[in-house]
Amino acid sequence: MHSEGAAVRVPAVEGPVVALDIGGTKIAGALVDSTGRLLVRAQRRTPATKDAETVMRAVAEVLDELAADPRWARASAVGIGSAGPVDASNGTVSPVNVPGWRGFPLVARVREMTGELPITLSGDGVAIAAAEHWQGAARGYDNALCMVVSTGVGGGFVLGGVLHPGPTGNAGHIGHISVDLDGPSCPCGARGCVERLASGPNIARRAVEQGWKPEDGAEPTAAAVAASARAGDPVARASFERAAQALAAGIAACASLVEIEVAVIGGGVAGAGEVLFAPLRQQLRRYATLSFASGVEVVPAQLGTDAGLVGAAAAAYAAAPVSPVPGRG
Amino acid sequence: MHSEGAAVRVPAVEGPVVALDIGGTKIAGALVDSTGRLLVRAQRRTPATKDAETVMRAVAEVLDELAADPRWARASAVGIGSAGPVDASNGTVSPVNVPGWRGFPLVARVREMTGELPITLSGDGVAIAAAEHWQGAARGYDNALCMVVSTGVGGGFVLGGVLHPGPTGNAGHIGHISVDLDGPSCPCGARGCVERLASGPNIARRAVEQGWKPEDGAEPTAAAVAASARAGDPVARASFERAAQALAAGIAACASLVEIEVAVIGGGVAGAGEVLFAPLRQQLRRYATLSFASGVEVVPAQLGTDAGLVGAAAAAYAAAPVSPVPGRG
Repeated sequence: MHSEGAAVRVPAVEGPVVALDIGGTKIAGALVDSTGRLLVRAQRRTPATKDAETVMRAVAEVLDELAADPRWARASAVGIGSAGPVDASNGTVSPVNVPGWRGFPLVARVREMTGELPITLSGDGVAIAAAEHWQGAARGYDNALCMVVSTGVGGGFVLGGVLHPGPTGNAGHIGHISVDLDGPSCPCGARGCVERLASGPNIARRAVEQGWKPEDGAEPTAAAVAASARAGDPVARASFERAAQALAAGIAACASLVEIEVAVIGGGVAGAGEVLFAPLRQQLRRYATLSFASGVEVVPAQLGTDAGLVGAAAAAYAAAPVSPVPGRG
Repeated sequence: MHSEGAAVRVPAVEGPVVALDIGGTKIAGALVDSTGRLLVRAQRRTPATKDAETVMRAVAEVLDELAADPRWARASAVGIGSAGPVDASNGTVSPVNVPGWRGFPLVARVREMTGELPITLSGDGVAIAAAEHWQGAARGYDNALCMVVSTGVGGGFVLGGVLHPGPTGNAGHIGHISVDLDGPSCPCGARGCVERLASGPNIARRAVEQGWKPEDGAEPTAAAVAASARAGDPVARASFERAAQALAAGIAACASLVEIEVAVIGGGVAGAGEVLFAPLRQQLRRYATLSFASGVEVVPAQLGTDAGLVGAAAAAYAAAPVSPVPGRG
């Protein structure tokens, strides 16, 4: 249900937001204005295998670079989106792929560099949801799940028209719900998690296990499986169909549990297009059967690689005082 | 996380609430005061296989009986909890076990008898959550799932300290999320739903299929399976363990998706006690693995057969204007 013409929350804050997107591969930063535009950006590779202070130094370098911009002085808030788990309630992060950071006090450390500005910490899935709701495919929806299907599977919710980060900023973590309780072991310790069945590496692994081979000695990636599937390879298609089935069961669970109207799917695996989306829509009809859940739509994400930064900023703007402006949808 | 000492929402409304609990077996009604006390009650058997008007006549008889009480004149609101699906957005109900009611305009029909009073319609799982949060085992929790495990499996959420009915009043419908995507067909059309693995009739069916027999020719009920399990019967124990595994996967999914702190479990199957709860706690450690989800507790419900009426009233009180009273927890 779109909320056409309903009041839209727009920031009352004045200057840009300092946005940080902390991932296992890169640490990105930007000054983001209240229209979602990136005014200036900075980036470092994540020294993911190094000690806590070395990782923090990369964050500091990104912030230093942004601080050199004259618009930094007008910044009104800081938004941080981080690979999870995070703990927004005490300002710490423990990204799975950055073992040096366990309960790392990222908010306190960033505050040393940003002074009195309010800081909003979210999990990266929550940030993606904030971004797609603000600027992308979830715009105008009051109840949405936004997912990234890539090396991992993550997500976040908009419920009742507002971002729903949950008490610790991790809500929407659809990658690690079990849809196959006797299924394959997942690195998280459970079995049959959505990520274990639907992430890019698992799509590729399953295809290889069933006898698929990438052409010309290329890397066995989900993108290569997608190309084979598009060319009609039945094993490649079957691997995407299994991923679609797991995603459908997970999305249907969300629809039954919190009544989402749309699931927005981004990330590298979503780039497979109809190879993924066609079986996903079909499987969703099998699993989302209750009257209030069966109408859930699936659509591709609209924001690209900047979604994490835009979303970190959106979450910060959402946490700031707002003035409702009637009539904008 | 308990919200000790935080402001508690108490009703600003004056008189009692007219509460209705519409189920497939009985239609119950009561006047419920602002402390949750049932001042007067009425009940009819649900003519579940009859036409729409015959079912409505039973509701009307319940309301007529309540209206004979002098306190009816002071009633401030109406709360209806109904077997689902419901559609709170347009005031209709379509209880699975009452085929004569499909999109039945229950709110409009009740309004003919209750005049100008505001009416709040919720799914029965949402009502249970309202009841347990107000008076029972979820009291003091800001984020809770409350479930009924009985002939069916249903549930509702409290999120961020308030009831979360969802746009149509059906949120928390954990019975029909799939935790076994290749599993047995569920009457809802999907496969491997929590209800298909964990409801009372399915616990009994699975035990019978594996060779268990009730003693002395008794009915093969979940209660009889529980008695055998308590006496050490391995097939009976295994059937409860499978139910516990499915419930654990479902509860863990809720913890990952919306960060619940507690799952409250009521209904006839919960009456099995440790036969259910011991393996459930064990399985929950297997499926709720993420740091922010692993602390989720499971506890038995505290309210009995009146939970539906208390919850229907609680949802009506929650929808009414409230005055915050600091210092009560």
